[in-house]
Amino acid sequence: MTQALQGKNPSFVLRAAGELTYEDRPVPDQPGAYDVLVKPRWTGICGSDVHYWVHGRIGHFIVEAPMVLGHESSGIVAAVGDKVTSVKVGDEVAMEPGVPCRRCVRCKEGKYNLCADMAFAATPPYDGTLARFYTLPEDYCYKLPEGMSLEEGALIEPTAVAVHITRQAAVKPGDSVVVFGAGPVGLLCCAVAKAYGAKKIVTVDINEERVKFALQYAATDSFISARVSAEENGKNLIEQAGLGMGADVIIDATGAEPCIQTAIHALRMGGTYVQGGMGKPDITFPIMAMCTKEINMKGSFRYGPGDYQTAVDLVATKRISVKELVTGKVKFEEAEQAFAEVKAGKGIKLLIEGPAE
Amino acid sequence: MTQALQGKNPSFVLRAAGELTYEDRPVPDQPGAYDVLVKPRWTGICGSDVHYWVHGRIGHFIVEAPMVLGHESSGIVAAVGDKVTSVKVGDEVAMEPGVPCRRCVRCKEGKYNLCADMAFAATPPYDGTLARFYTLPEDYCYKLPEGMSLEEGALIEPTAVAVHITRQAAVKPGDSVVVFGAGPVGLLCCAVAKAYGAKKIVTVDINEERVKFALQYAATDSFISARVSAEENGKNLIEQAGLGMGADVIIDATGAEPCIQTAIHALRMGGTYVQGGMGKPDITFPIMAMCTKEINMKGSFRYGPGDYQTAVDLVATKRISVKELVTGKVKFEEAEQAFAEVKAGKGIKLLIEGPAE
Amino acid sequence: MTQALQGKNPSFVLRAAGELTYEDRPVPDQPGAYDVLVKPRWTGICGSDVHYWVHGRIGHFIVEAPMVLGHESSGIVAAVGDKVTSVKVGDEVAMEPGVPCRRCVRCKEGKYNLCADMAFAATPPYDGTLARFYTLPEDYCYKLPEGMSLEEGALIEPTAVAVHITRQAAVKPGDSVVVFGAGPVGLLCCAVAKAYGAKKIVTVDINEERVKFALQYAATDSFISARVSAEENGKNLIEQAGLGMGADVIIDATGAEPCIQTAIHALRMGGTYVQGGMGKPDITFPIMAMCTKEINMKGSFRYGPGDYQTAVDLVATKRISVKELVTGKVKFEEAEQAFAEVKAGKGIKLLIEGPAE
Amino acid sequence: MTQALQGKNPSFVLRAAGELTYEDRPVPDQPGAYDVLVKPRWTGICGSDVHYWVHGRIGHFIVEAPMVLGHESSGIVAAVGDKVTSVKVGDEVAMEPGVPCRRCVRCKEGKYNLCADMAFAATPPYDGTLARFYTLPEDYCYKLPEGMSLEEGALIEPTAVAVHITRQAAVKPGDSVVVFGAGPVGLLCCAVAKAYGAKKIVTVDINEERVKFALQYAATDSFISARVSAEENGKNLIEQAGLGMGADVIIDATGAEPCIQTAIHALRMGGTYVQGGMGKPDITFPIMAMCTKEINMKGSFRYGPGDYQTAVDLVATKRISVKELVTGKVKFEEAEQAFAEVKAGKGIKLLIEGPAE
Repeated sequence: MTQALQGKNPSFVLRAAGELTYEDRPVPDQPGAYDVLVKPRWTGICGSDVHYWVHGRIGHFIVEAPMVLGHESSGIVAAVGDKVTSVKVGDEVAMEPGVPCRRCVRCKEGKYNLCADMAFAATPPYDGTLARFYTLPEDYCYKLPEGMSLEEGALIEPTAVAVHITRQAAVKPGDSVVVFGAGPVGLLCCAVAKAYGAKKIVTVDINEERVKFALQYAATDSFISARVSAEENGKNLIEQAGLGMGADVIIDATGAEPCIQTAIHALRMGGTYVQGGMGKPDITFPIMAMCTKEINMKGSFRYGPGDYQTAVDLVATKRISVKELVTGKVKFEEAEQAFAEVKAGKGIKLLIEGPAE
Repeated sequence: MTQALQGKNPSFVLRAAGELTYEDRPVPDQPGAYDVLVKPRWTGICGSDVHYWVHGRIGHFIVEAPMVLGHESSGIVAAVGDKVTSVKVGDEVAMEPGVPCRRCVRCKEGKYNLCADMAFAATPPYDGTLARFYTLPEDYCYKLPEGMSLEEGALIEPTAVAVHITRQAAVKPGDSVVVFGAGPVGLLCCAVAKAYGAKKIVTVDINEERVKFALQYAATDSFISARVSAEENGKNLIEQAGLGMGADVIIDATGAEPCIQTAIHALRMGGTYVQGGMGKPDITFPIMAMCTKEINMKGSFRYGPGDYQTAVDLVATKRISVKELVTGKVKFEEAEQAFAEVKAGKGIKLLIEGPAE
Repeated sequence: MTQALQGKNPSFVLRAAGELTYEDRPVPDQPGAYDVLVKPRWTGICGSDVHYWVHGRIGHFIVEAPMVLGHESSGIVAAVGDKVTSVKVGDEVAMEPGVPCRRCVRCKEGKYNLCADMAFAATPPYDGTLARFYTLPEDYCYKLPEGMSLEEGALIEPTAVAVHITRQAAVKPGDSVVVFGAGPVGLLCCAVAKAYGAKKIVTVDINEERVKFALQYAATDSFISARVSAEENGKNLIEQAGLGMGADVIIDATGAEPCIQTAIHALRMGGTYVQGGMGKPDITFPIMAMCTKEINMKGSFRYGPGDYQTAVDLVATKRISVKELVTGKVKFEEAEQAFAEVKAGKGIKLLIEGPAE
Repeated sequence: MTQALQGKNPSFVLRAAGELTYEDRPVPDQPGAYDVLVKPRWTGICGSDVHYWVHGRIGHFIVEAPMVLGHESSGIVAAVGDKVTSVKVGDEVAMEPGVPCRRCVRCKEGKYNLCADMAFAATPPYDGTLARFYTLPEDYCYKLPEGMSLEEGALIEPTAVAVHITRQAAVKPGDSVVVFGAGPVGLLCCAVAKAYGAKKIVTVDINEERVKFALQYAATDSFISARVSAEENGKNLIEQAGLGMGADVIIDATGAEPCIQTAIHALRMGGTYVQGGMGKPDITFPIMAMCTKEINMKGSFRYGPGDYQTAVDLVATKRISVKELVTGKVKFEEAEQAFAEVKAGKGIKLLIEGPAE
């Protein structure tokens, strides 16, 4: 391990399910004309990183070769290509970790997150950002505004996830919004929904500590599910949270079956449901309630055009705050312990520092 | 029965589950200022009519008092209120059978089909149109354009259902559209999707006769599901129908679990799914495929602003044809036999004539 | 005058252009089933009231019979119809002053502000709210939330105008928004745009005092037009306000030709322009810049579904503040002087108290 | 001239305003990985080509160096890059003539036609397609479906212009659509609006021959403007064409001031106006009618994501026909005479053949 860290491009690598290690990867070439070489400084750990570590796969994405982990990062620009104009060496940037093909129908119609040829950091076979160097195109680097720290810059990624979910949900001023799950993404959804003018933001979780935090952080109301039918839970949620005819918008950030079912029953006629959380591939679902209430139901996958910039803007203008979500920071050498802590469900967001010079 | 038919307002009534009869109902008063009194001439039988007959209820709607059946009707204006200007006595009209409160948030925002206080013909406790007289507001009467028959006028109702589904699906020129189910609504969805410019319209059913009819009627391609997994069926559907990366739009007009599951797997990234058919309240649903493909999923409930008029226009301008869907016509006195035939799955659409003068 | 005020329903009436007086109007009947009788407490004076006073007309609307003035009002419920459930006698309410026909295509599609049969307070031939009594339907009464004063309630009307303009403009988080004009509506547009997450809000006016107020109130940047070409003004505005490739959204709350022209030149490719202010019917307009920049350009007329409620919510949740816009309050007896002051351009918003009991 | 035509890459070049000639340009290199080398076979002449010839500029685009003309082309693939998969040597293709940067905000949000760094054929400083060879990216080549001729392929460009205009206009089934101007783009707008389900399509022109052709081609009604005020013309248009409360959608394909003014007066409340035609930069415009009718007004510039494919689909599926628009075909050597004829207003669409082998 020590040896690897003394290398030119020390990298934190998942060799296969359960096998974390450090490797010295080749230092990248000078960046291409429109590319930027960045030294990542802080990287948040995401549930998906841990999932790859534990299972070696997520759905169709299978770790078949050693892969550098990490994709929630900020860093410092180390070199820029000939045609780069928006950032320069030394700039601090948030790094959007997925680069699409730019040529397919989805890319051209403004949905690059749905590109079939997306190269996404730490999604096989693409390496992630937990290394000394990482290259990405200029237009996927976002210069941090004055006053924004590199730690906050690393939180832009989950914030962009929440921005995208909230955009899918089309939250607008005056809406009542229920968010199932008070983990990092659920909390950020509460905060973004508030910034978008939601009047009532109800946090739902089974963990009272988390609910308490959510109420301090961004939610206006809370609900703790009981062991009753989804329909009854939905009715109770509406009553307890004062949702009248039902919620305008419900976001699921859990992927858990009972949450999804309850959500459909707690929506108003014509309300909007967004599936943000990942869970079991198939669940029992109240399809007829969805149909006759004419619910708008949408998936949300990563982030698309404008989401990263909006996330930067929301943090820069203090409309949302992300600092309090950072519950721990560790050195690059301690990455594996950090992964273990996240796996154990400790804290909200843990950051790993980039390798020392 | 004969006696009832000689009455002033003979009506075909469901007394309770399984109990059909004729009653002589009071002749309605002169219509209110903005109302129109219509003598229904032709009424189509809908699955929901049959469902009430068999089960005495649909979901929360329970037949607790004798209820006149029928809601897919055309008729002749018999009297008009003081302030009515758009129709006059003797005009032939298509009759939109649901009248909302006009005052709630849903009504005012342009979603009157989601009004909680909707008075809908032949939905308890509101009487339907299988009677000599029926009163409705002027703005829910659509004068039949020249050349449109009263039989076609009765088909406007299921056409409006298909128009609403297709509007929920936002079908646009060049789209590939898959329609599960080749019953009346599924067939009309194919026709409307074609009128809206869909490039490929794939009909899916388990009944080969129906598929054949759909191909002659409006579909460009067909698929017959096999007894394999939904994921495999989806893959086969994409291949056999030449859907490339998947269908742009899928409409379910069956309510059947395997169809719904297959649909989600056969959609492209970012595709649109509309639930039009009614079935079991809960099903096993591939929620993660829906999520990561960022599918737009919508329910469709009856019809809203503009749908009835669009249906009239589509038929009047020959963009869609509805005549061939009428597979039988019976006298008012034969209504019960007609119901029995629909229950037995015979024909596509059966029309019942209004009572003789 | 004194006599009129002692009447049962003293009313402030415009008899013809230039002729203001008080009349004792008949006390309204008990309200209809869904109606509410309100005693207006505070009424703001709007430019249109003054325009009727001075010119006796606005466009096609001509004062042909004595008309009670006033339409920006809050009041106290004095009586309610049989079926009214949402307010009761004694409640304080904001009063939405225009009631549409509820039956036309525009009403049903969710655009009731475009109803051709709108009955709007103080728009001929309909009487306004500057009287002891005013009757309106329940669903056009908005109960003031706890903590909201009746004075604030009177400000809901111009706030709803700004909400509608901002909705037409589809302002979203991160947008740069330029507002021409720093009168009441322009100021409220700045505040609402801020509440909707706009990153940069540029106020433009020729009056430095107003610009100063706008900056304290809600704007982040300002610009004062020079006597140069619209194209040059547009370029200067972009540069001075740091708008990069141009503004995302521009709202005109002046109706003035040079503002409108400058706005088109200051927008980015694909930006949105909303005409909120009233002015000369015809102007010289840069149509080709509008065309090749593919600008979305929209009119904004009064307010539609949801706007009044959103305005109440924005004030109730302190997302916007309206108190500081009230620069004067007068007794009912002093209404004419108040009109003279508004005509002279004094203050931002003047409120007239309802007649004493 | 003959000499040039014997060259390896004979090209039809505008040297400066008024100066047309032939040049032998270098044969392009092998295409890049994602690029395609095409031999253009048919090229339509566009008003903009003629405008450059006559004036040497269009707005800010100035011909400062000799430029190959032509951008409405179809051709045969002569070579493909390594990674090209969708076309192969020998394929017949329609060629979309503008390639955006793919990296800016506009490109990524799905509006590549608004890209500030667009490289557009025959728009300075970029060469056009009237040459033996032309290189463009694979995703801007559209393989002609079976049964579509190369002549039709050349018409895809103006069809895509009409598709984009119609998309901006959001034409939907049942709409009434008025199109000012019966030149190539106006005619195609009529045809596309019909394909999109418009119920009434009114052609307006001052040339009776053109109006006659439009009626045979795609319009259902016509109107010939009189020398009266725009307001009166608008009223007459509504009456004569039976537009009820006004048109749902009006498209201007003329750029002429009286047309634009009349259009605004002929729209219904909340109607949509699209500026498709180019004309004087500034006109007198009825801004208050636009405002109080809450008109949606949009520019339309070239074509964006999906428009070219939709144009191909519409022609391939016979929903629109373009053959009858071709009123003349000339050899490459006769290009200058062809330009002169177009300048003189002869015919609808003239095609120039590519240089012989």
